[in-house]
Amino acid sequence: MAELHVTSTTNPRLKAVTALRRRRVREEQGLTVVDGYEELRLAVDAGVVPRTLLHCPELMLDPERMGGLVDEARALGATTVRCSRAAFEKVAYREGPDGVLGVVPVAGVPLADLRLPADPLVVLVEGLEKPGNLGSVLRTADAAGASAVVAADPVTDWGNPNVVRASKGTVFSVPVATAGLREALGWLERSGIRLVATTPDTDRVHTAADYRGAVAIAVGAEKTGLTDAALGAAAERVRIPMAGRVNSLNAGVSAGVVVYEAVRQRSS
Amino acid sequence: MAELHVTSTTNPRLKAVTALRRRRVREEQGLTVVDGYEELRLAVDAGVVPRTLLHCPELMLDPERMGGLVDEARALGATTVRCSRAAFEKVAYREGPDGVLGVVPVAGVPLADLRLPADPLVVLVEGLEKPGNLGSVLRTADAAGASAVVAADPVTDWGNPNVVRASKGTVFSVPVATAGLREALGWLERSGIRLVATTPDTDRVHTAADYRGAVAIAVGAEKTGLTDAALGAAAERVRIPMAGRVNSLNAGVSAGVVVYEAVRQRSS
Repeated sequence: MAELHVTSTTNPRLKAVTALRRRRVREEQGLTVVDGYEELRLAVDAGVVPRTLLHCPELMLDPERMGGLVDEARALGATTVRCSRAAFEKVAYREGPDGVLGVVPVAGVPLADLRLPADPLVVLVEGLEKPGNLGSVLRTADAAGASAVVAADPVTDWGNPNVVRASKGTVFSVPVATAGLREALGWLERSGIRLVATTPDTDRVHTAADYRGAVAIAVGAEKTGLTDAALGAAAERVRIPMAGRVNSLNAGVSAGVVVYEAVRQRSS
Repeated sequence: MAELHVTSTTNPRLKAVTALRRRRVREEQGLTVVDGYEELRLAVDAGVVPRTLLHCPELMLDPERMGGLVDEARALGATTVRCSRAAFEKVAYREGPDGVLGVVPVAGVPLADLRLPADPLVVLVEGLEKPGNLGSVLRTADAAGASAVVAADPVTDWGNPNVVRASKGTVFSVPVATAGLREALGWLERSGIRLVATTPDTDRVHTAADYRGAVAIAVGAEKTGLTDAALGAAAERVRIPMAGRVNSLNAGVSAGVVVYEAVRQRSS
């Protein structure tokens, strides 16, 4: 079959892709957009099968390597669409697009479907608002070898293109789930996972907690932190020491600091 | 003297403030904008004297508390300007402005003017591009009680309103300096400060290094990391362990993880 070519910026295929910028459309269709070679490469390596792959050889800095991903996606069953520069720039989400964009199933499974190893390390984020922070937490979770990231009462969906981008594609490599807080806390308890919650309102510093065994680390929303319900369910509450004028770190940094303290303890 | 009132959105005083969105203007005038009560409160607490303070009581959620800062700035010598909502929204940088905006001297001193305590903890950032990451590093440095943040060959200036904002105002509470890389490395050496450089290209994990005494932690640019020149000058090179598919963390998270390992070691 000859590959589809799109040169018109008003082609309906392009409109179907740009429609995925809207959360409602993403949730109806269960699809989202991965804009960029590196992110899509990581997603495919993690087992994601693109439905559609749009590419624009004219924009590619490394057409051979990037074209390889196009061929691979086609072999996996993706419809590939070659776009003119104008057409591609119409659908690209980022400034300075690199010529590769995939439409893929949204990440995330129900809590009950998460497969955990023995002694899992879980990251629980409650009410995070900024896609950049959620993405940064995913990147940290991937790097730290975390077993899962659970978003409780999230403001942002896993398919948000800014989450996908800030995560560098790790939203597809780290097992992720969304749940109401009560459901998430019940699941942790039934799974025998100890919850360590971060909050400024404790004297116990984060390095004093024990992160070995089955542990979840909870981080709250940017402005308000964890809710009382989450703090109340925690086996331990810890704070990151603050010696200056601010009373909190960036939410993504907080998660990174505590998760890597867990990595330190678990590998020693 | 009666306070100035501005109701017209074309008032030249407003134009002078919006002109500070341009780096060239900030550098010519040595001034920048702090948009928001919390950030300006922190800056004033850290000793910053605003030149001008624009305020809009109509936009304030807490006029009494916020008005207190207006009075305080006036007592310090700031010109205060009361703005109509339309006028204030014209100069405000953020969406949903809170009714307080200050024009203040840009942060930063020459390297030679940095006053360091005994056994300083310095953060050296080389070539960071994203204002959000630089801001997040400043917030971490403030919270960790770091002695200074030095930007080597920075892409962003300390007055960038997105840096000010992402730093939550800590760009005014943490001593900051800008220098060429060679100059910064020479200064570290003359000051007897050991450089620990982060890079994926080493087997030594970051928790294996010794961060006690006079230490600088170096973090590189988002895409390219530290340059060979910076790595070559380091007493130790360390990597943050990566167990997943990505080979780096968000730059602000990397800095946070290593700086807080230093805090852990220095406080134990």
